[in-house]
Amino acid sequence: MYQNGTGNRRLRELPETEALRLLAGVPFGRIVFTRHALPAIRPVNHVVVGGQIVIRSSPGTILSAHVAPAEAVVAYEADDLDGYERLGWSVIITGVARLVTDPAEAAHLRTMLTPWVAGEMEQVIRIQPEIVTGFALVPAAATA
Amino acid sequence: MYQNGTGNRRLRELPETEALRLLAGVPFGRIVFTRHALPAIRPVNHVVVGGQIVIRSSPGTILSAHVAPAEAVVAYEADDLDGYERLGWSVIITGVARLVTDPAEAAHLRTMLTPWVAGEMEQVIRIQPEIVTGFALVPAAATA
Repeated sequence: MYQNGTGNRRLRELPETEALRLLAGVPFGRIVFTRHALPAIRPVNHVVVGGQIVIRSSPGTILSAHVAPAEAVVAYEADDLDGYERLGWSVIITGVARLVTDPAEAAHLRTMLTPWVAGEMEQVIRIQPEIVTGFALVPAAATA
Repeated sequence: MYQNGTGNRRLRELPETEALRLLAGVPFGRIVFTRHALPAIRPVNHVVVGGQIVIRSSPGTILSAHVAPAEAVVAYEADDLDGYERLGWSVIITGVARLVTDPAEAAHLRTMLTPWVAGEMEQVIRIQPEIVTGFALVPAAATA
């Protein structure tokens, strides 16, 4: 019950493989990056291919241009949290986002990843996870 | 339907007052900050008091210490997105996070904001919104 009374949950740390599996099982997450020297975040849909997170974006938002070096350190977060029951999980990845520059590969990945809004998101970006952290909120008494 | 086929949604920009109202109506969001020069994100629960977003955190995570100047530019995101129907909203705020240093005020705010996990989150932080952006995903044909 959401009574704003007790913080009777604890965090169960997720193994990396479980964290990536959970992230791959949901259709969207949030890309965290630096824009004009300020912290920025955007919800995007994703697929996980070969252990990498693949997203689409508009040129200039996350990666500056089509020219090399088009890469940036980013974080990526996905979760399934119930704020009322205070249960669920969150996975946070830190890694390097790189533009997919091979036209055939980019075209193939685009078929797997339809933006929610038409006419946007020309860039295909993949994120190589370097740090993967995840937790599940579980009742404080639980041992699972 | 989620057929990965069409991006038949469009973004309706939310007025600032509606964006803040939506954010205030959900129990948690995601604080986006810089940690060790890297983009970082954490899910946290929040309340909105006097137009400011109030959260709790552990010392050293978002703001470095109890000593002044304990402030940082952050982003804060909350959403209610249905990744399968591709409908919902997201609100992103950029602003300055400051430690609440007055003990009585901090104690009062703590009563409004119980962390989900016991024994953590000593700091009370408020975020003064400077930039508020929000969008709703609506069917591309809709005019509402």
